[in-house]
Amino acid sequence: MTSPSLPRALGRTTWAIPEGYIPPESNGPPEMLSHETACLLNTGGRDANVRITIYFADRDPIGPFNVVVPARRTRHLRFNDLSEPASIPRGTDYSSVIESDVPIIVQHTRLDSRQAAAALLSTVAYAE
Amino acid sequence: MTSPSLPRALGRTTWAIPEGYIPPESNGPPEMLSHETACLLNTGGRDANVRITIYFADRDPIGPFNVVVPARRTRHLRFNDLSEPASIPRGTDYSSVIESDVPIIVQHTRLDSRQAAAALLSTVAYAE
Amino acid sequence: MTSPSLPRALGRTTWAIPEGYIPPESNGPPEMLSHETACLLNTGGRDANVRITIYFADRDPIGPFNVVVPARRTRHLRFNDLSEPASIPRGTDYSSVIESDVPIIVQHTRLDSRQAAAALLSTVAYAE
Amino acid sequence: MTSPSLPRALGRTTWAIPEGYIPPESNGPPEMLSHETACLLNTGGRDANVRITIYFADRDPIGPFNVVVPARRTRHLRFNDLSEPASIPRGTDYSSVIESDVPIIVQHTRLDSRQAAAALLSTVAYAE
Repeated sequence: MTSPSLPRALGRTTWAIPEGYIPPESNGPPEMLSHETACLLNTGGRDANVRITIYFADRDPIGPFNVVVPARRTRHLRFNDLSEPASIPRGTDYSSVIESDVPIIVQHTRLDSRQAAAALLSTVAYAE
Repeated sequence: MTSPSLPRALGRTTWAIPEGYIPPESNGPPEMLSHETACLLNTGGRDANVRITIYFADRDPIGPFNVVVPARRTRHLRFNDLSEPASIPRGTDYSSVIESDVPIIVQHTRLDSRQAAAALLSTVAYAE
Repeated sequence: MTSPSLPRALGRTTWAIPEGYIPPESNGPPEMLSHETACLLNTGGRDANVRITIYFADRDPIGPFNVVVPARRTRHLRFNDLSEPASIPRGTDYSSVIESDVPIIVQHTRLDSRQAAAALLSTVAYAE
Repeated sequence: MTSPSLPRALGRTTWAIPEGYIPPESNGPPEMLSHETACLLNTGGRDANVRITIYFADRDPIGPFNVVVPARRTRHLRFNDLSEPASIPRGTDYSSVIESDVPIIVQHTRLDSRQAAAALLSTVAYAE
């Protein structure tokens, strides 16, 4: 099994996800916890230093949240887990902007398990 | 916690969402009300004056619906809540075009709770 | 209530939807019938003459399916309803290419009600 | 019923899907098996030789997985079914890059049936 010949950094350096909402409740076992995720793929040979800014409906944006995606790795980042400089309030509308110092690719996914049967949504984010 | 250094207005000024349908029924508590949303993110330093036009299958489009998204704010606009110059009929196929005087980013989401277990869909809208 | 000042034809003339599958079963009342839809929005002042080609895994493509989307109208076209030159088999993988003589915008949606609780997916189609 | 006049190869040659996760459990009959799919559409007149690379959070990428999509055919490829040079672990975050020697179009879909009521997500993949 050979490692692929792709040190190429695919993607863009600025992304946005207008939809954002962490459901305040969950049902089921831990792996079914309601969550909101940004999947960050770094196909290149250099680590990606990523800064995330969170926008709200009625107050100033917060950030940056600093995250590293190592070279040739993916990181499925849960907004639930962000804590520095603040945590994201549950049950609140928000949006995010994701900036990286090298090209990455971003996809947005939510698992909503407020009800016994979970629902999913996903979309490739907007690339500037 | 410092505010981010991003007065940059990301996005485009014309967007379209071909899919549109507000489910006529809902199940569950108020927060699970069936709804159709356009998430509008304005990352720039100037308020966005947004006009929305609604297209139907069998009659002339209606609008404009005028909405403001303040500078550096997000607005998760429910089509359910539009009332001026008209409200959007439930259980009816429609589409929307969203025009702004400054760049914004638009994502479309629906929560369908016609059944006991809700379903979700979402996609970044089409940018002209 | 004034009609909008948009005779502008937004979008592109060639679109593709790689995912295609009409669930062979449904649950619930008629409006919850499993279906696969292409939402076609024509914002311009001329009717759109649309031809759809369906691709399969193991046989030649079929088409064209001819559809008209009137000027300044939307059409949420169910693949279930196509019948000429053929109908789309249920429970079968397919893809579609949608070509129009004027620009349109296309979004793909599926409602899957094979189970008591329906699931939804949607994405703006690929524009060439 | 005539075959369409489209030997045109639509799409791009490099695609990426940052989200990837094969749910480790399923409910219901075989057709409701939890799965993760890349729908690959080749509208052109030449077979597409496709190589897929899988990225992980904490180890080197694996691949290439070699797949052929015949001319004028679609292939709804389940990541579950990949086995050479390795299989994709269940319940593990991953991403994929899809490269083809001719243009193709790629859409990503997941069916998650860990619960009695399945959930769906889908998005057109990112095209470089």
